[in-house]
Amino acid sequence: MDRKIDLNADLGEGFGRWQLTDDEALLASVTSANVACGFHAGDPVTMRRVCELAAERGVRIGAQVSYRDLAGFGRRAMDVPAAELTAEVAYQIGALEVFARAAGSAVAYVKPHGALYNRAVHDAEQAAAVVAGIRMSGAATGAGGPLPVLGLPGSRLLAAAERAGLPTVEEAFADRAYRADGTLVPRSEPDAVLHDPEQVVKRSVRLARDGEITAADGTVLGTAARSLCVHGDTPAAARLAERIRAELATAGVQVRAFA
Amino acid sequence: MDRKIDLNADLGEGFGRWQLTDDEALLASVTSANVACGFHAGDPVTMRRVCELAAERGVRIGAQVSYRDLAGFGRRAMDVPAAELTAEVAYQIGALEVFARAAGSAVAYVKPHGALYNRAVHDAEQAAAVVAGIRMSGAATGAGGPLPVLGLPGSRLLAAAERAGLPTVEEAFADRAYRADGTLVPRSEPDAVLHDPEQVVKRSVRLARDGEITAADGTVLGTAARSLCVHGDTPAAARLAERIRAELATAGVQVRAFA
Amino acid sequence: MDRKIDLNADLGEGFGRWQLTDDEALLASVTSANVACGFHAGDPVTMRRVCELAAERGVRIGAQVSYRDLAGFGRRAMDVPAAELTAEVAYQIGALEVFARAAGSAVAYVKPHGALYNRAVHDAEQAAAVVAGIRMSGAATGAGGPLPVLGLPGSRLLAAAERAGLPTVEEAFADRAYRADGTLVPRSEPDAVLHDPEQVVKRSVRLARDGEITAADGTVLGTAARSLCVHGDTPAAARLAERIRAELATAGVQVRAFA
Amino acid sequence: MDRKIDLNADLGEGFGRWQLTDDEALLASVTSANVACGFHAGDPVTMRRVCELAAERGVRIGAQVSYRDLAGFGRRAMDVPAAELTAEVAYQIGALEVFARAAGSAVAYVKPHGALYNRAVHDAEQAAAVVAGIRMSGAATGAGGPLPVLGLPGSRLLAAAERAGLPTVEEAFADRAYRADGTLVPRSEPDAVLHDPEQVVKRSVRLARDGEITAADGTVLGTAARSLCVHGDTPAAARLAERIRAELATAGVQVRAFA
Repeated sequence: MDRKIDLNADLGEGFGRWQLTDDEALLASVTSANVACGFHAGDPVTMRRVCELAAERGVRIGAQVSYRDLAGFGRRAMDVPAAELTAEVAYQIGALEVFARAAGSAVAYVKPHGALYNRAVHDAEQAAAVVAGIRMSGAATGAGGPLPVLGLPGSRLLAAAERAGLPTVEEAFADRAYRADGTLVPRSEPDAVLHDPEQVVKRSVRLARDGEITAADGTVLGTAARSLCVHGDTPAAARLAERIRAELATAGVQVRAFA
Repeated sequence: MDRKIDLNADLGEGFGRWQLTDDEALLASVTSANVACGFHAGDPVTMRRVCELAAERGVRIGAQVSYRDLAGFGRRAMDVPAAELTAEVAYQIGALEVFARAAGSAVAYVKPHGALYNRAVHDAEQAAAVVAGIRMSGAATGAGGPLPVLGLPGSRLLAAAERAGLPTVEEAFADRAYRADGTLVPRSEPDAVLHDPEQVVKRSVRLARDGEITAADGTVLGTAARSLCVHGDTPAAARLAERIRAELATAGVQVRAFA
Repeated sequence: MDRKIDLNADLGEGFGRWQLTDDEALLASVTSANVACGFHAGDPVTMRRVCELAAERGVRIGAQVSYRDLAGFGRRAMDVPAAELTAEVAYQIGALEVFARAAGSAVAYVKPHGALYNRAVHDAEQAAAVVAGIRMSGAATGAGGPLPVLGLPGSRLLAAAERAGLPTVEEAFADRAYRADGTLVPRSEPDAVLHDPEQVVKRSVRLARDGEITAADGTVLGTAARSLCVHGDTPAAARLAERIRAELATAGVQVRAFA
Repeated sequence: MDRKIDLNADLGEGFGRWQLTDDEALLASVTSANVACGFHAGDPVTMRRVCELAAERGVRIGAQVSYRDLAGFGRRAMDVPAAELTAEVAYQIGALEVFARAAGSAVAYVKPHGALYNRAVHDAEQAAAVVAGIRMSGAATGAGGPLPVLGLPGSRLLAAAERAGLPTVEEAFADRAYRADGTLVPRSEPDAVLHDPEQVVKRSVRLARDGEITAADGTVLGTAARSLCVHGDTPAAARLAERIRAELATAGVQVRAFA
């Protein structure tokens, strides 16, 4: 069989003196690195180092664009006018591109972070503004064109990207609870996040190998997600990513960056 | 005769709600626009707009890189470690490149701003760090290589750039007083800045046509500067730039971007 | 007769190199100064200077608290969790209090700025969080207790303040169009802002003298507003404020800070 | 005998999502908490929490003022003009005062952080500017007057404070190497910091009990320091502080906040 899956995680989420993600350890397991670009996290020195490490290990580099909100780590939704959001997204992609190219790689995709990710699931205007920013950065990318967008199946973001002719990649979350309609249980609710590593590993394998994920109410959902998001901002994150990768291999699933 | 000179000015030095430079008016006169990149001034929307206007008018776009200091407008010298400064310079160039390329142009040179400009005149370590940042961004530029550096004749910055194999362009200031040794009278001293437009226009013409500038003590200095810096951050700046350009034309000096 | 009214305006809305409000001129006309506290505008040097000028002229000092958003000038609504918003409001009041007290005055009231002002009109949670921040700062104020809140009649903010036992002061806007139900026409709609100085002056007098304001559809609304907000962020603002003050005097309305 | 010493540490040095210091554990051992005020670290929520915890445990609260430099954690010296530095220092003290007072305590002293601390050792202008900022905040403090300054013996900062009539408190560092002239070995040199906990504990006891500290070359220095600084920004910091406190007690030294 030839099941395959991409593993993505948020990296470089420190800022100056502060560190959060164990970038080196995570890069040993993931195939796509969502690198913070300075607006919610990610100082230039960290961006450079993560790009160098990712390039060395053959891990794909993505721009993890965010609202401008260091104090809130990009987790506070903002009513940013479309023109501002578009320019802010383009700015971040350009800044990261320098470090990716200097490392012999290039930014290969874009994934919004935190509150912007959540907002772009249902807010058509902000989704379109993000896509416009990605398009705007297209002329400056190594690929010479707009980058693929990594996002939630059914989101306004992926819809806007498709309309604009951008490649889209759907992702799933092994450690988040789903509703029967395929949406995520919001973090504000109890049991939104699964904390048992065994369970997360099993769900990852089932998701990647069988294309199935079980919702909170027991409903079995089908998924065509080509990427699996593993969280990087806990001490145990790197070990969990390592186990998921190993179990996927054992289950005959090829772990590699999406095409 | 074929005397020629480039006119450069700082543009896009607003931030969000605040405006400072009359970008549209200045772009009618200058041939090189030093665009603020977000660290001392320059929000993404402004960067985009200035790049679009510059591209339309055929004005060359340069990255005006700075210390990270919005509160001080980049005018406070900082002991930034070399690795941080290098990455910060590269970050800013990359961010601007996106808007330049989206406008059909490309970042064509780099000029440090304010305190960083002054520090890099005599501080060899910071000069080298800036140059390293320019080199780092080389792979991501439209030109596919490190950008030329615009700076003060005799500065550590231009020396470091030359050693690193980067093209250099010397500039002169028509509205700043010079010492007999060719350095600028520091702003902290009285009479450091010339405020009489007539005098500034005359000095501009003499500088561009005859390659001469008179120091504060009357000494006549020779200069091979290929670019003339006109200040953009006063209400009268755009009118002065317009007059300088007109008088240069009358004097038979071709005003065009440096080769 | 003894009609009286307070005139308030936003002051100190520059940041570092950037200036916006003509603080000195406005202080000649207004009786209450809403001083920016550093989150949407207002660097410490400006805050100090405005407090000194206000104290000299006997103008009351208020804390104009905002979301943390320099890039957006506090005009972008943010989903800030209540605990964060409360602490951010208290932080800003404390910072301003230092300059007010050093000038021999004290912060005498609080008025939210921009998007926070608008959000707190209808968002009960954020309104309560702002009030909690004002209460938190109460022990550190010169008055030794929570400060009065200046806001829109009928807003959640004033309701929350009343429930918490804080004094409240209602304000009206002479240059904003009203709906028949007493709410403001949103800025996103045409004709939301009145630009004719004659009209604004007349509305000001009628509002202060007769307690009436005419809505966009012609309905005459009664108002008990004790303060009138004049805008400070345009070049003509100071002249308009001066005229309003003069016409109010002519009409027999006493212009002085609310009790 | 009645030897006594104050133990101070830097606390609250996280920012938003990022944590650095184990505030709760450190507060079990130290008697003075240098609380970050938002310029190099320290968001309002953290400031509030640390003040509440300190007040509960009877730990004295100090304002750890800094250059405005989140990206550099206040470790990059800056040429800040005196008037700006003065206002920035006052701003930070005022912001912290709100949380200290709300917790039933008050800011009781000021200690500059990082590069500002080092600069104020030898830079008379910046030292005077910091002292002016402390004086400016005096009218808004709970004590109703300028706060004591905690600093390095022989520093320009303490000299300026004395000239201005402010109380001064000298501190010593148990984990830093000293030169024979009583100055600290700069961090840029090897062996500037002592990493062996045993040695640090022994030096602490000798310093507090006997008023002696041994320089790197073996010279025994006398010290009248009334406060001992223990570092808080490493995982082992809290345990080390606990051991120092215990050993001081065993040695008959009373650990309590300076008078």
